[in-house]
Amino acid sequence: MAKNTNIRISLPAVCFVWQIAMIILFGVFVRYNEESDTRWIEHRRRKNISTNLENDFYYRYPSFQDVHVMIFVGFGFLMTFLKRYSFGGVGFNFLIAAFGIQWALLMQGWFHYLDDDGKIKIGVENLINADFCVAGCLIAYGACLGKVSPVQLMVLTLFGVTLFAVEEYIILELLHAKDPGGSMVIHTFGAYYGLTISWVLYRPMLSQSKHLQGSVYHSDVFAMIGTLFLWMYWPSFNSAIADHGDGQHRAVINTYLALAASVLTTFAISSISQKHGKLDMVHIQNATLAGGVAMGTASEFMITPYGSLIVGFCSSIISTFGYIFLTPFMEKTLKIQDTCGIHNLHAMPGVIGGIVGAITAASASESVYGQEGLINTFDFKEAVANRTANIQGGYQAAGLFVAIAFGLVGGALVGGILKLPIWGDPADANCFDDEVYWEVPEDEDENMLSSHPNMNHARGMPDA
Amino acid sequence: MAKNTNIRISLPAVCFVWQIAMIILFGVFVRYNEESDTRWIEHRRRKNISTNLENDFYYRYPSFQDVHVMIFVGFGFLMTFLKRYSFGGVGFNFLIAAFGIQWALLMQGWFHYLDDDGKIKIGVENLINADFCVAGCLIAYGACLGKVSPVQLMVLTLFGVTLFAVEEYIILELLHAKDPGGSMVIHTFGAYYGLTISWVLYRPMLSQSKHLQGSVYHSDVFAMIGTLFLWMYWPSFNSAIADHGDGQHRAVINTYLALAASVLTTFAISSISQKHGKLDMVHIQNATLAGGVAMGTASEFMITPYGSLIVGFCSSIISTFGYIFLTPFMEKTLKIQDTCGIHNLHAMPGVIGGIVGAITAASASESVYGQEGLINTFDFKEAVANRTANIQGGYQAAGLFVAIAFGLVGGALVGGILKLPIWGDPADANCFDDEVYWEVPEDEDENMLSSHPNMNHARGMPDA
Amino acid sequence: MAKNTNIRISLPAVCFVWQIAMIILFGVFVRYNEESDTRWIEHRRRKNISTNLENDFYYRYPSFQDVHVMIFVGFGFLMTFLKRYSFGGVGFNFLIAAFGIQWALLMQGWFHYLDDDGKIKIGVENLINADFCVAGCLIAYGACLGKVSPVQLMVLTLFGVTLFAVEEYIILELLHAKDPGGSMVIHTFGAYYGLTISWVLYRPMLSQSKHLQGSVYHSDVFAMIGTLFLWMYWPSFNSAIADHGDGQHRAVINTYLALAASVLTTFAISSISQKHGKLDMVHIQNATLAGGVAMGTASEFMITPYGSLIVGFCSSIISTFGYIFLTPFMEKTLKIQDTCGIHNLHAMPGVIGGIVGAITAASASESVYGQEGLINTFDFKEAVANRTANIQGGYQAAGLFVAIAFGLVGGALVGGILKLPIWGDPADANCFDDEVYWEVPEDEDENMLSSHPNMNHARGMPDA
Repeated sequence: MAKNTNIRISLPAVCFVWQIAMIILFGVFVRYNEESDTRWIEHRRRKNISTNLENDFYYRYPSFQDVHVMIFVGFGFLMTFLKRYSFGGVGFNFLIAAFGIQWALLMQGWFHYLDDDGKIKIGVENLINADFCVAGCLIAYGACLGKVSPVQLMVLTLFGVTLFAVEEYIILELLHAKDPGGSMVIHTFGAYYGLTISWVLYRPMLSQSKHLQGSVYHSDVFAMIGTLFLWMYWPSFNSAIADHGDGQHRAVINTYLALAASVLTTFAISSISQKHGKLDMVHIQNATLAGGVAMGTASEFMITPYGSLIVGFCSSIISTFGYIFLTPFMEKTLKIQDTCGIHNLHAMPGVIGGIVGAITAASASESVYGQEGLINTFDFKEAVANRTANIQGGYQAAGLFVAIAFGLVGGALVGGILKLPIWGDPADANCFDDEVYWEVPEDEDENMLSSHPNMNHARGMPDA
Repeated sequence: MAKNTNIRISLPAVCFVWQIAMIILFGVFVRYNEESDTRWIEHRRRKNISTNLENDFYYRYPSFQDVHVMIFVGFGFLMTFLKRYSFGGVGFNFLIAAFGIQWALLMQGWFHYLDDDGKIKIGVENLINADFCVAGCLIAYGACLGKVSPVQLMVLTLFGVTLFAVEEYIILELLHAKDPGGSMVIHTFGAYYGLTISWVLYRPMLSQSKHLQGSVYHSDVFAMIGTLFLWMYWPSFNSAIADHGDGQHRAVINTYLALAASVLTTFAISSISQKHGKLDMVHIQNATLAGGVAMGTASEFMITPYGSLIVGFCSSIISTFGYIFLTPFMEKTLKIQDTCGIHNLHAMPGVIGGIVGAITAASASESVYGQEGLINTFDFKEAVANRTANIQGGYQAAGLFVAIAFGLVGGALVGGILKLPIWGDPADANCFDDEVYWEVPEDEDENMLSSHPNMNHARGMPDA
Repeated sequence: MAKNTNIRISLPAVCFVWQIAMIILFGVFVRYNEESDTRWIEHRRRKNISTNLENDFYYRYPSFQDVHVMIFVGFGFLMTFLKRYSFGGVGFNFLIAAFGIQWALLMQGWFHYLDDDGKIKIGVENLINADFCVAGCLIAYGACLGKVSPVQLMVLTLFGVTLFAVEEYIILELLHAKDPGGSMVIHTFGAYYGLTISWVLYRPMLSQSKHLQGSVYHSDVFAMIGTLFLWMYWPSFNSAIADHGDGQHRAVINTYLALAASVLTTFAISSISQKHGKLDMVHIQNATLAGGVAMGTASEFMITPYGSLIVGFCSSIISTFGYIFLTPFMEKTLKIQDTCGIHNLHAMPGVIGGIVGAITAASASESVYGQEGLINTFDFKEAVANRTANIQGGYQAAGLFVAIAFGLVGGALVGGILKLPIWGDPADANCFDDEVYWEVPEDEDENMLSSHPNMNHARGMPDA
């Protein structure tokens, strides 16, 4: 039952049409904001800003670049672990992230940054938010890794970014919940979106490609590049759009500590769960990051350093046990095939993060935060000037449900679309195989190199 | 027809002599500038600078480190794609970059930073410029990858940096053209310099090492590390020496967008050009970067966000088609063997960047830039206070021709020098092979590990 | 003589107990400092601080992230060079660094940051210092790589961090020596600590695992990732906690130059020492970094640009010769088995760094530094307001001896503890083998993929 995986028309068509659409929409809607426009000097004079350093660029650019590395190298290399799907892991991640950030600038712009003149004015914060937005889709890709075509991924991203922008608007603007590192908005939404899609696209005969559904020694080392860049830069992720000054500073400390605790717990659970106490790379590559996910909502709050350690401690225990017990259960019983185990790394820690955020917010007090500090941290201003910390906790919890709902409903809809037999997805026996969508160089036994001189995959030289 | 590739005398001699020369010249000429000297505190008082943050270090250091990563990991790993030349790719890149930055500090210093006391005063901007300068030579290395000896590369770099400094002086100082990301100064010059050298060093029997002139699965994944770090940090490259404030901010936005568009176009053209729509890693690793190259000159201009998307869109189409059609044509007809396809990634997008810069500059207006903004962006001050945008466009175009001319003429001269039979370059049959210049560990079949216990390449243990 | 390497109880126990201890101690002792607390806004008003940018976060965060990358990717990937110990190299590095930074925050906090209320107040500088502290233990790990169990490494780290904090307190506070990049405090101490441990744990029959004590082609390329990130970010390492303004700026320049010179010298000595002038990856991966180590103490001093080049030049000569002659000698004669050659990369360059620091400090003068500059650079204030540069040189030298003494004595003690037969270390024949502590995926010949469909190491799927 061979499937047609020829995407020679569909992939270029989608890429071209969508890129041209982006150009037109950017032409109509997107302009520089006052900090990235040459009129910044006039703006400075008007606002009496004493130095160029007060340009938001200098507050946020280092964090932006760290986030950028997480999106492209972090997520990309984390998905190279499969023995013959490294090209697809890092390559399709690259494709959909590059498309997604453009569409995100528009979608988020329409919801958050529309100026009086009907234009979206962009600066460095928009770039960070676009990277954040696309992270949700990359998480969803993790559940589908190896089982979908790049065309399907482009569709998944188009709708994913759209849903994200709406969901984010409801949670951050309407509910006025805080979520600087996106435990709810990014991780919970993205994970349930991807898991539901994977459930709709369930492949009963996936065991036909079982021999490819694992790693080899070197591919596990490649994946560690992804893990480590995610782990190291996660403090930047959770602080990138936090408040200037103490907000960014505290978010970094909290995330750094949660992640440190995650590593020890993951090693502990991984070792105790195997017969001879041997460690499993799957756990080390993934569950060590759970603390970063779970600290996303509360990163800016006064959760205290030991509170952060506890969050990392608990979330990684749950995450590692998820890899050991839940993933096989979900596959067998719930018919959800989750290639990267995003349920363990993003869904559960994301929900934990939302709950931690709600509790921490509800218990915030002026004695701990200071009067001004409380107002600044939760932005109890203007429309929500009278909101108390207690009530804020309730809205935080509401935000979590919105994120889950958008993930489930959105995933079901998009999964339905992706089930159409027009997207060039691989047959069950060809999953997890780069041969389907990539020109893969023929590997040869090293010792045979000299006796097989007929290979040629030189740069820019098409096969004869 | 075995060639003598023994570099046991020549390489150490060149390294020692040149390093000692650097020490002496630095001793005579190079000092800290007022921002990196302990007298900064006096300077601050004199100039009434209120805070340490106004030290240029804090404006530019994050961008510098990103550029640094591009030079050493970006260029280095991009050149690891060959199946048996990864050591040479990343290792010789390391060697010539480390030498080049020292020589660049001197050459650029003499031309741009000479103080009244005859000393070159250096700070963080000099470090960035030295990294930029060396990028031209690393591009040139891309054309020669696998076919030259490290001694030849040192010579290529010595002359390359020298030519760069002169060319840069003419373009930036005499013509007063703008080129913050170096589309002309770095990419166009570097590419034509390397291509001309490769043309002079043409090897008619290179097909003898054809079996090594390709990638294997893992080497393609290694190369993606290079690609992604170049891609992610390119906004820093194009903004690192841009104007404080809006200049750096805008350069980042423009480059980010051009690169995002490049990815989609590259995937589209790569897929449409293969029989079954399969993607080619060569394209993904290279042409996705064309937008960054093409945005180098105009990065600081008010090219608008959609203008940036168009630049990325067009340059990657041309770049990918270059890999498909031009590289084979150049090799067969023009006798130019371009290992990494730098003509497609640097020459053509660099020229596009120069043209885009000239057009954008010529069409700049006070209504878009604001009166002060126009003056600040183009530095219409002092000697060029009366220059109009139109005329600036002409000078920008002139700069492009200077860059091409320096590349062609300089490459011909240096190519002639490198053709001398004294540099220890490999025979045609030994190209693209690390065995020639490196102690390569003997790979063994994994299953044989236990039965062959006689291997020893331990750290610091010379072969018996 | 099979050893029991089952760590199913001991490793989880150690991880859990220590992580819970951390949580309790953090609960009792650790709080946010005034720059990371929500009361920062009140602090700003009290201290009349005009802008959020004066929060130390903005001075140090970019450098912190670079240091963080060095610790986890730099050290981690540098240790992936062994053909079958890449998991252990990067994985155990991850484990002990994540534990060490928590313990370091406490230990360094008690010695340096204890507030009047008995709490340790932390901010970004503490995070940097914790990363620094753990670097000493990672260096020590380098000597023991492949020969110890993760439980031993946790013990090594617990005591290593403790010793570090005491030694650092004596050198920096009591002796008032300067050591911003830690030539003495980090590298000298860490190296002698590790070498002494390795000496105590001497394995006479280690040749039984000789076949694994080398690299393969790809593992050497992985190790270059570590080398390059260490090399590129070393300027951040040596400047991260330097003085605001010119201090950080100068430390970057000095380190950049020392490292550049190191590369050329390493290539020269490596080539000259081999029969056909072939380069050895061991040297390139390691000795190119010696300049960074040797510039650690004097990085902030007015050592002049050419002085920095000389430091890099000399330290890499010694380091490379160390790999060629000293390591084999130490193994045969002194019974010190130094897997990564840390004696060559950290011990000798660290001592050089200490000596360079002492000499440079002793020869500092008001004519070069300026009156204020001299006071600022050496902190000749309060208790040491009357100290002269000459005397400072003596104290610097004293600091070097303290570092060596702590390394030797501490290493002997901890080595004795680690010799107990309870830690699950591998037998001599099983050293350098990931199989002992990791679930290693079965590699299969690529050509056999389709005929062996019985493999399964999918994410989260426990072996049947």
